[in-house]
Amino acid sequence: MKHRTALALITLALSASSCATTDGDHQPGPLLIQEQGSFAAGGTVITAPGTFDPIKQGSYNPAGPDSAGQTLHGDHVYASYEIPANARKLPLVFWHGHGQSAKTWESTPDGREGFQNLFLRRRFPVYLIDQPRRGRAARSTQPVTMTAAPDEQLWFGIFRLGLWPDFYPGVQFSSEPEALDQFFRQMVPNTGPYDAEVNSDAVSALFGRIGPGILVTHSQSGGLGWRTAIKNRNVRAIVSYEPGAGFAFPPGEVPELTMSTGVTVRGTEVPLPDFLQLTKIPIVMYYGDFIAEAPTPNPGQDQWRVTLAMARLFRDAVNRHGGDVTVVHLPELGVRGNTHFPMSDLNNVQIADLLSQFLKQKGLD
Amino acid sequence: MKHRTALALITLALSASSCATTDGDHQPGPLLIQEQGSFAAGGTVITAPGTFDPIKQGSYNPAGPDSAGQTLHGDHVYASYEIPANARKLPLVFWHGHGQSAKTWESTPDGREGFQNLFLRRRFPVYLIDQPRRGRAARSTQPVTMTAAPDEQLWFGIFRLGLWPDFYPGVQFSSEPEALDQFFRQMVPNTGPYDAEVNSDAVSALFGRIGPGILVTHSQSGGLGWRTAIKNRNVRAIVSYEPGAGFAFPPGEVPELTMSTGVTVRGTEVPLPDFLQLTKIPIVMYYGDFIAEAPTPNPGQDQWRVTLAMARLFRDAVNRHGGDVTVVHLPELGVRGNTHFPMSDLNNVQIADLLSQFLKQKGLD
Repeated sequence: MKHRTALALITLALSASSCATTDGDHQPGPLLIQEQGSFAAGGTVITAPGTFDPIKQGSYNPAGPDSAGQTLHGDHVYASYEIPANARKLPLVFWHGHGQSAKTWESTPDGREGFQNLFLRRRFPVYLIDQPRRGRAARSTQPVTMTAAPDEQLWFGIFRLGLWPDFYPGVQFSSEPEALDQFFRQMVPNTGPYDAEVNSDAVSALFGRIGPGILVTHSQSGGLGWRTAIKNRNVRAIVSYEPGAGFAFPPGEVPELTMSTGVTVRGTEVPLPDFLQLTKIPIVMYYGDFIAEAPTPNPGQDQWRVTLAMARLFRDAVNRHGGDVTVVHLPELGVRGNTHFPMSDLNNVQIADLLSQFLKQKGLD
Repeated sequence: MKHRTALALITLALSASSCATTDGDHQPGPLLIQEQGSFAAGGTVITAPGTFDPIKQGSYNPAGPDSAGQTLHGDHVYASYEIPANARKLPLVFWHGHGQSAKTWESTPDGREGFQNLFLRRRFPVYLIDQPRRGRAARSTQPVTMTAAPDEQLWFGIFRLGLWPDFYPGVQFSSEPEALDQFFRQMVPNTGPYDAEVNSDAVSALFGRIGPGILVTHSQSGGLGWRTAIKNRNVRAIVSYEPGAGFAFPPGEVPELTMSTGVTVRGTEVPLPDFLQLTKIPIVMYYGDFIAEAPTPNPGQDQWRVTLAMARLFRDAVNRHGGDVTVVHLPELGVRGNTHFPMSDLNNVQIADLLSQFLKQKGLD
């Protein structure tokens, strides 16, 4: 028994060492986690009129509570965190997109490691969030009706896996049916009305609690990320995977672009002092493959044609005012086949490497 | 630099060793995680009538999708897992109660380590789940309206923190206002109709995927746990914190008990062969403090008086048929002040020690 324990200790010590020497590259082996936990940040409290009587109102009623005098805490963000041993200074705060949760950054649909593990291996503290009215932060101060309407073929197209029922040729998504099943099951609905202020207020409160960090957004949270950085100086950089809407522009510089459907998309006007806040931090945006170069009737490809054009106009506007914004269209680097979810695509280690290079270049690691 | 790295390695190796030698006791230091990830298990797929046209139906519409021919994957369970280095054989699968998510088992409302970390330190693989139609498994195949009705004073009573607005004297819950704020914010609503079959089917599918393990339930999932063990032989033991309803009895042995409000509570009848499955695994139930011994108008205390009595009748029924069920009423052991959430109460390390002793005694560790 004593020998077995000693052997285990040596093995563990070696494992821990290999884990601790990891620096930038993807390496297998165990993770050495100094601390992990979870908490809520931000949010509000609503109180129903009246006075609560704990005897009369204290029995559970499946038909619903007698709310008189009772409170509801809602609209907060839920955050879980893992801080590796020998951690780098600035944490990465990962924020999911529309219809998603923190799951976006965990195991990929085909069961490989996602950005959560990849960046823990690179010794970054990792925060994963469920935004207000979503996932584990589902308590909303506003009611909502959820319809359970089937919509997955729509998202197959918008997420650029392909034109249903076909995958795009060379797409970086597993052809195993189980992977698509897992991918669809990582969707989660809004549990209250979508509200950009509620979302950015809560994530700003999170940064108020944890201090300086790097915000990593995806799709819908791209627009929320600019708002959060405007609200909180602790956002020291933004990395955005395929930000989808809500690009901020100062008065007089707000562009309009038109999709092939005839729908016009407009930038979001913000006051100049707010906009200028975005010139003070490094920002990088990554876009994947299968984005149309010219108008096309394929809605999934056309939506992202217009979005990528808007992202470039946003870049130009911020840089014109003295900012540091980069748009990386992955195919231009020879990185092909990426969907709307580069963080979980088959080549996600390569995508993570690009992020590591960016962080190093900007002195953020 | 080289010296600093060498020192870090030695420190890390020592930390890893102290972590790895932990055996039953709570010890500080980093966690050595061999593997971690997340996935969905179980669930169903619904398909809307018609044929999907990716061009006509492929544009996002905030008013809702044209569902014709589209699918929705829902009613699965979401599970995240961490497997420590040098892990014990049987994982602990932690299942939250009504209005809760996996957060129940993570950091406590006052910021200490919850059962997630405590049992990783004791080298158990740990699975945390969000049940179907909850949290990160929120995609439901059935619609629902969420009312956002304030109800927290009701739960303050049912969860036996006190009789609002007063805490019970000696309660094992932090008196810091921030703790109660965090506690309320860990509540999450149902995102579909509550369905015991949907829940137990999904968790049975989880055990089908992960193999043998120990199911740890809380409150509402207590009743779901019995159903899951009936459905899946991989459930090798059940540890239940304050199971609240759905106690299984064979035909002819179903008891009725009456609350002080006059409401009658009845055991759940199951076929004898199903019931007998519960005689084949060790089962332990823990109940905390502030449970009434005689009928009282305080609904929170009276509900648990009847529930504890029902738990004892369930114990007696299973043991009468050859089972191995224990009810632990913590105050009888001199363990006082526990709420409905012993896993996150101020004395949760002591509560974890009791569980460790049970698992050791039953040869499950």
